[in-house]
Amino acid sequence: MNQSNNLIEDLVDALRCMPGIGKKSARRIAYHLLERDREGARHLAGRLTAAMDQIGHCQQCRMLTEKTICDFCSQERRDPTLLCVVETPADVYAMNEAGYKGRFFVLMGHLSPLDGIGPEELGLDQLATLLDSGEVEEVILATNLTVEGETTAHFISEMVRARDIRTTRIAYGVPYGGELEYIDSSTLTHALNGRRDFT
Amino acid sequence: MNQSNNLIEDLVDALRCMPGIGKKSARRIAYHLLERDREGARHLAGRLTAAMDQIGHCQQCRMLTEKTICDFCSQERRDPTLLCVVETPADVYAMNEAGYKGRFFVLMGHLSPLDGIGPEELGLDQLATLLDSGEVEEVILATNLTVEGETTAHFISEMVRARDIRTTRIAYGVPYGGELEYIDSSTLTHALNGRRDFT
Repeated sequence: MNQSNNLIEDLVDALRCMPGIGKKSARRIAYHLLERDREGARHLAGRLTAAMDQIGHCQQCRMLTEKTICDFCSQERRDPTLLCVVETPADVYAMNEAGYKGRFFVLMGHLSPLDGIGPEELGLDQLATLLDSGEVEEVILATNLTVEGETTAHFISEMVRARDIRTTRIAYGVPYGGELEYIDSSTLTHALNGRRDFT
Repeated sequence: MNQSNNLIEDLVDALRCMPGIGKKSARRIAYHLLERDREGARHLAGRLTAAMDQIGHCQQCRMLTEKTICDFCSQERRDPTLLCVVETPADVYAMNEAGYKGRFFVLMGHLSPLDGIGPEELGLDQLATLLDSGEVEEVILATNLTVEGETTAHFISEMVRARDIRTTRIAYGVPYGGELEYIDSSTLTHALNGRRDFT
């Protein structure tokens, strides 16, 4: 039956471009929209098209934005001496919500030679230009605490040190609210090694 | 920052029209599409618009379709003496996959007087016309085994009996692969009452 009921099946297939949406969820979503929220679905179609056509990357920090320079870069009140390097746009929001007040640089990924992602793909020449501008006094490496994130952080730290700029890495440790009993041992080892004087 | 980064936030909000997609998933989906699958997103936008504009209801069984009469109704090889009444289009696919070979009637919901859903909203006059055509010899009530589904099945069974047509209800019982230990007691009671001679 499936191939003849074209438009519904096409929609179900198209919905699967979204991460985490399998065949069953896609079908449930398609029926929900068709039965209960056609207006919402039409609105979504419009927003999708507008976003895909108009959103590009900030020429300074590579953040996703529809402008030439993104809002984070153009905000006067952000500290230009601090530069936080993150992997994804979602990380920018996460750091911003955590109270970070400096500038950002978004790699849009991490080094992954097997997938053909090298320094060029991560815009590291753009980062070099930024560092050479002389404004930045500290680069905070906030890539993920994964093998790939660590490798990327190492690579960038070399670049930064060559320019005599301070490099820091966000702290490893026990997450806030974490109970030691349930924390994996590598995290605990790092938490122990990174211990600080109690104040 | 959110309100100025308009197109991304608009997209995130628009994505939430889908059931099961909250703010976090919507943001993850938006970034994924923007970073990795703009073509997929544009395709989805097109499919959404086409589906919402062109898909209506089958004039015979109320199934979602872009045609006047849906594929299930127009298939010659389906047994016209059997009519299976279900709540949603998803149920049609489920019954079809389970090997059911007759016709369908889709209520697009269940009786729910408090939400203003009565016999008219479920298209029961259309069902009556179908029953009066004289072709149907058995109506299988396959509404959900919930309070609302049961009420709806009861209501329809009266309609069908008044026309001297056989009515049946799909069986209650232990699901295939079910372990008795984990089955709730009402299901077990029904399974016990519905026991059959072992062959």
